[in-house]
Formats: sequence, C-alpha cells, structure tokens
Amino acid sequence: MYKFLLDLSLILISTKLLGLLTRKFHLPQVVGALLAGLFLGPAFLNIITETSFIQHSAEIGVIVLMFCAGMGTDVKELKECGKASFVIALLGVAVPLAGGFGVAYFFNRAGMIDSDASSTILLQNIFIGVILTATSVSITVETLKELGKLKTRSGNAILGAAIIDDIIGIVCLTVVSSFADDSVKISWVLLKILGFFVFSGLGGWLFYQFFRRWCNTGRAMQRYTIVAFVYCLLMAFAAENFFGVADITGAFIAGVIISMTQREELLASKFDVLSYLYLSPIFFASIGLQVTMPAMSGAIIAFALSLTIVAVLSKVIGCGFGAKLCGYKNYQCKRIGVGMISRGEVALIVASKGAALGLIGSAFLGPVILVVVVTTIITPVLLKWTFRGGPQAPIEIKEHHLADKHEDIAAIRSGEK
Amino acid sequence: MYKFLLDLSLILISTKLLGLLTRKFHLPQVVGALLAGLFLGPAFLNIITETSFIQHSAEIGVIVLMFCAGMGTDVKELKECGKASFVIALLGVAVPLAGGFGVAYFFNRAGMIDSDASSTILLQNIFIGVILTATSVSITVETLKELGKLKTRSGNAILGAAIIDDIIGIVCLTVVSSFADDSVKISWVLLKILGFFVFSGLGGWLFYQFFRRWCNTGRAMQRYTIVAFVYCLLMAFAAENFFGVADITGAFIAGVIISMTQREELLASKFDVLSYLYLSPIFFASIGLQVTMPAMSGAIIAFALSLTIVAVLSKVIGCGFGAKLCGYKNYQCKRIGVGMISRGEVALIVASKGAALGLIGSAFLGPVILVVVVTTIITPVLLKWTFRGGPQAPIEIKEHHLADKHEDIAAIRSGEK
Repeated sequence: MYKFLLDLSLILISTKLLGLLTRKFHLPQVVGALLAGLFLGPAFLNIITETSFIQHSAEIGVIVLMFCAGMGTDVKELKECGKASFVIALLGVAVPLAGGFGVAYFFNRAGMIDSDASSTILLQNIFIGVILTATSVSITVETLKELGKLKTRSGNAILGAAIIDDIIGIVCLTVVSSFADDSVKISWVLLKILGFFVFSGLGGWLFYQFFRRWCNTGRAMQRYTIVAFVYCLLMAFAAENFFGVADITGAFIAGVIISMTQREELLASKFDVLSYLYLSPIFFASIGLQVTMPAMSGAIIAFALSLTIVAVLSKVIGCGFGAKLCGYKNYQCKRIGVGMISRGEVALIVASKGAALGLIGSAFLGPVILVVVVTTIITPVLLKWTFRGGPQAPIEIKEHHLADKHEDIAAIRSGEK
Repeated sequence: MYKFLLDLSLILISTKLLGLLTRKFHLPQVVGALLAGLFLGPAFLNIITETSFIQHSAEIGVIVLMFCAGMGTDVKELKECGKASFVIALLGVAVPLAGGFGVAYFFNRAGMIDSDASSTILLQNIFIGVILTATSVSITVETLKELGKLKTRSGNAILGAAIIDDIIGIVCLTVVSSFADDSVKISWVLLKILGFFVFSGLGGWLFYQFFRRWCNTGRAMQRYTIVAFVYCLLMAFAAENFFGVADITGAFIAGVIISMTQREELLASKFDVLSYLYLSPIFFASIGLQVTMPAMSGAIIAFALSLTIVAVLSKVIGCGFGAKLCGYKNYQCKRIGVGMISRGEVALIVASKGAALGLIGSAFLGPVILVVVVTTIITPVLLKWTFRGGPQAPIEIKEHHLADKHEDIAAIRSGEK
C-alpha cells in the first residue's frame, strides 16, 4: 500500500546520483536520469513497475517540461535569425526524417523485430523518422556556453535553427499521431490541426491580454503561478481532447504565450522547482521503466546501431547543407551541423508519446534511448573539435573579441604560441 | 484517458479561488480549499471522483505538509516555554479527547449512524476523541500575528502548547492506529512504537551529522533539497512499513531533524512551492472529495453539531484550566483557551488517515470538516474579543511596548481617549 513512497524516493535519489555522475563526465544530467529508470525497471533490477500514479505524474512532468521550454523561447531572437535558421532547421528535419524512415523500412519487417504497435508498418516507419528530427535546444546551448561560443555567428544560427526545429518536430508529431487513428479522414485531421492553431492563437491572445494586465495590478506571485499552471494544463487537455493534437504541443504553446508577458522569469523559477524536485525525475525514470531487456537482442541491436549512426550523420549533412545554401563558410557549416546532432528530452518525449499511442512498439524505446545517449555524449566532444579547426576570424568572434585578443597576447608572452 | 489533466486544473483553480474568497472574510485559505473539494466531489457537483493518482498524490501532499510543519518547529522555543506549555497542552489534549469520546459514545450506536468502519465501536469512539485533540499551529500563529499579540506572554504559551499538542496528538494517533489491527498484541504495538522512536532518534542523529557537514561543503541547493525529500519519504515509508506508525509522524520527525540544520529556511522555501503549486491543493480537495451527501442527514447532523460545540468548549476549558494551574491570570487563561480552539490541517489529516485505516466510517468526515471550518472561523473572532477585555498590563506587552505608548499619546492628542 505504501510502496509508492519507496518507489518515489528510489526514483528521486537514483536519478540525482546518476545525473551527478554523468555530469562528472561533462554530460547532461538527463543521461543519468534515463539510466536510473533503466536500472530500476524490468530491464535490470526490476524493483519498480509502472503504476497509474507514476504514469500520470510522468505525463504531468513532461507537460511541465514542455511548458518550461515554451517559456524559455525567445520570440524576438527567433525573428532576428530568420531565414537562415529556417532553412537549416527545415533540412535538419527533412534529412533525419528520411534517414530514420529508411533505417526503419529496412529493419521493421515481419519476423525481424517483435512489434506490439497497433498502427500500420508505414506509419511506424515514418514515426521513427519523426523521432530523429528534434534537436535538444538545452543540450546545444549548454555545450556552446561551456565553450564560450554561444554569441558567435554559428552559435546564433544553431540556436535559432534548434528552436524552429523543435516546433517543426512537434508539428510532425501532431500530424503523424493524428494518422494513428485510421477511422478518421485526413482532411478532417488537418482541419482539426488548423482549428487548434486558430484556437490557441485566439485563446493565447486573450489570455495574454488578461494575464499581462492582471499581473501589473499586484505583487502576489502565488496566484499568478497557479493561474499559469491551470492555463498550461487546460491547453494540454484541450489539445488532446478536442483537436487530437499532442498535449505537449498545447503546453509548449502556453509556455510561449507566457514568455511574452513580463512575469515569465519568476514563473519559470517556480516551475523549475516543481520540475526538478518532483515531476521530471518521475518522467525520465518512467521512460527507462518502459524498456524491457528481452527486446534488446539480435535484430534490435543492429537496428539501434544503424539508427544511431543515421541520427548523427543525417543531422550533420542536413544542417550543414542548409547552412551552405545560406552562404555560410565551410568551417561554419561543419560547426552548425555538429552542433545540431544532440537529441534530448524532445526525442524521448516524442518516443514515449508514440509508444503510448501504439505508434511504435515498446521494443523501439531501447534504441531511441541509445540514440539520445550517444548523440548527447558525442556533441560536446565533436563541437570542441570543430571549434579548434577553422580560422578564428573576427566574424566568428563578436562579444569575446577583446577577451580572446588578451588571451592571445598572454599565450604569446608565456611562449605557448 | 486525459481527464486527470482536467481534474487537476479544476482542483488547482477552485481551491485557489475559494481560498482567496475565504481570505477576503479574514479566514485561512484552508477553509476555501476544503470547500472546493466538497463542491467538486460527490457531495455536490460530482465532477471529480478519487483516482489512485489523486489518492497517492494527496498522500505525498500531506507528507510534505507535515514535513514542512516539522521544519517550522522551533526546538529552542519549545524548551523555553517548558513546563507551562506542557501542562496546557496535556489538559488541552485530555479534555477534548474525553469530550469527543463522549459525543461519539452517545451517537455512534447500532442504527443511528451508518458506519463502514472495520474496527470496534470502542476504538472508533476513541478515535473521534483523538481527532479533536490537535490544535492547528499555523492558524493560531496567523491570527496572533494579525492581532500583533504573538510576542505576549499568552502568545508564547499558546505557541508552545500548540506545538506540544501536535506532538501528543500524533502519538495518540499512532497508538490508536496501531490498535486498529486487533490480531496484534498491545505490548508488541507499544514495543514497535518505542522501536520507531529509537530508530528515528538514532537515524535522525546520523542524518543530522551527515547533512550538516555536507551542506557546509558547497552551495548547490538542488541536491540538498532532493536528499532532504528522500529522507522525508523514507522516514514516512519506514514508519508505516516497519513500525506500524503513521507515515506523517515519520515525515514530521524528519522535518524536525532538518529544522536543526542551518539550511532549513532555504529548503522550506522549495517545499513551499511544491506544496502550494501542486501537492497540497490535491490533498485538501481529496478530503472534500471523500464526503458523500447522503451521509449528511438526521443523526449525523445532530452529531456534527454536538461535536462542534464540544470541540470548542473542551479546548477552552482544558487549556484555560491548565493555564490557571500554572499561575496565569484569569484574562490570560481566557486568551490561551480561546487561542487553542482552532483545528486545522492536523485534524483533517488525522481524520482522513483514520478513514483510510477503517478506524472511522467515511460518514464521519463531514462532521470533522464542519468542526474544522467552524473552529477556524470562530478563533480569530473570539480571540480579538478576549484581547479587547482584560488589562493591557506591561507584562502582556513586551515588544510592542514603545509603539503602543506612542499610539496612546497620539490617541490622547487627537482626543480619542
């Protein structure tokens, strides 16, 4: 009866411990949190099984994560990067989508991989392509910050493209998810998606007007936070229930709307606590909990390795080519392509969403986790390497200009150069 | 499938709205939150039914509430008030315990009230007495703060007594809960309770030593908060699972241990967010959700009214008499007695605990809510009135001494006195 208390404490402590361990190796804590779920679940120790409490809490966890991602979106910055970022993002979605579909088309045939998915093989294969599309903004930004290269031209292009990329990825997810229910006509599905964007645009505008004025009247934060949370939950519910759109899409849009009000930073700090202290450990662990070990053998291992290789190459090629089209220099194209490799929360979110809808079999969750882990490990390493090559041209160094010069002089003096 | 999102948003918005409404009438927001659950549940609108998700989240909510109450306990202050507070608390527990038992003994007979409780009638009646014992520290403190009388001699006595009162109440709850399982010998039950206090004393000492030193080594708050939360959850789990003690007792003790480290304020601020933004609305609403309307008729209404009257009188008499024994003046005894009337979270926690264990029928939850609502409404009103009567002796005014004098002079000058 009280086992859920033990489960929760195990999830909290193990995600944190493994998260800190992975951070020691300069990897994001997400990787550790995923591994924690994998260890606790049926794949290894089999201590915790998923209950409806864990399931629902994890769902709210991912809603809050996407809400926070929405609040972190800088709408102005998005407009500035403009065309270049859009082209990079579009090709950075198209190539991995095709690549993922190709790998899945080769492996996902009768007898090769046991699939408990309920949708058609074609839809399953497309969905695996969709999983490969999303770049993790947070991991990219963290890496660039660590390198001190966030404010370079390449850095800006990566940032803008990663944001647009996320949005395109979510639209793809929505479209593909809608097809999962094949009793529905395609035109009706597209109409509902359009309806959702009209609804969230109008509703968002009204909420924005109300919320911005209301926030200006007082200083009591508690009620603002709760109203923002309720708005996020209702948008998530409305998206799923009335429009057949993913609940996380609703939550993300709610976050974007909040980001345009002035209170966004204070609100984000509250949801940050709710997220790290309770909800997101449950979410990340719950993904690992769904992976079963018997599924990780034979064809699935070959599939996992191929998917990982395609995931890395398709982003580098897609985004690099996109950058080239927009007139970036070769060394910049390399940086942009490598900077977009890392998949993160979003790929996991999309995959777990698909498993819940029957779009992919649970056997495919293991490979997706491998993709996320490998791409997250490889990005900082490769990115460091690309920034070592290529000229340190003044175009590349904007804000760190003087500091770099100073360092150069110091290096020359100490005889290093 | 996604109804839990709608449920959650309804719970959050309605507890907050009704909470703000009750605050408009100078009542604690707890009252509003309770009413919200009552409206949403089967008693009125019947929109939300309790799921295992709500149940588990509510349980974690009350654990966090008691953990916070533990963190708020000032161990030093408790030692200073000492003997007087202890006598007041002891009589303030004994008289309501006897009073509640008496009322229950009169009403809780075959045919008068439908009871779905599984324990013996005697144990049920004792348990109703136990529910009446706990004074709500937070409500008392809020009221005294509003009146500016927290630092008076009466104020200190009330504060100390309320804290001790809570602890005695929890011990009573533990003892009575243990008896619910009548296959177990009484000596064994008492031994287990003793074992729990030894365990939590030793474990608490070890954790305190570790946590205090560890916290001094760095400034990263996130991991401290998570470790504190895990400690709280494990104490709650161990209490229930190994010692047959209420989980909230374990959480409360964990909070007291944390309160002795230096990081308690920062930690409390994090758990405060988790609590108000997510967990405690679910907890308070879930209590209201358990109340069914058909049970609120005939004998149960008479019982509810009697229980409320006894709840008010027994505290005033018990605590007032205790204060008299300790040499307080008559007007001070009146203040102390009235200040201890309010029941709050703790009474609700104890009652919902009892319902879950089968110690009281769910029919009794309505009356308990009435007791909480009435005592919380009546306390600030009566307390204001007692502070109007009686001399404004210098012993009664410590910190506000100069300010009061200044006000008096101003009043004389303006011709009001």
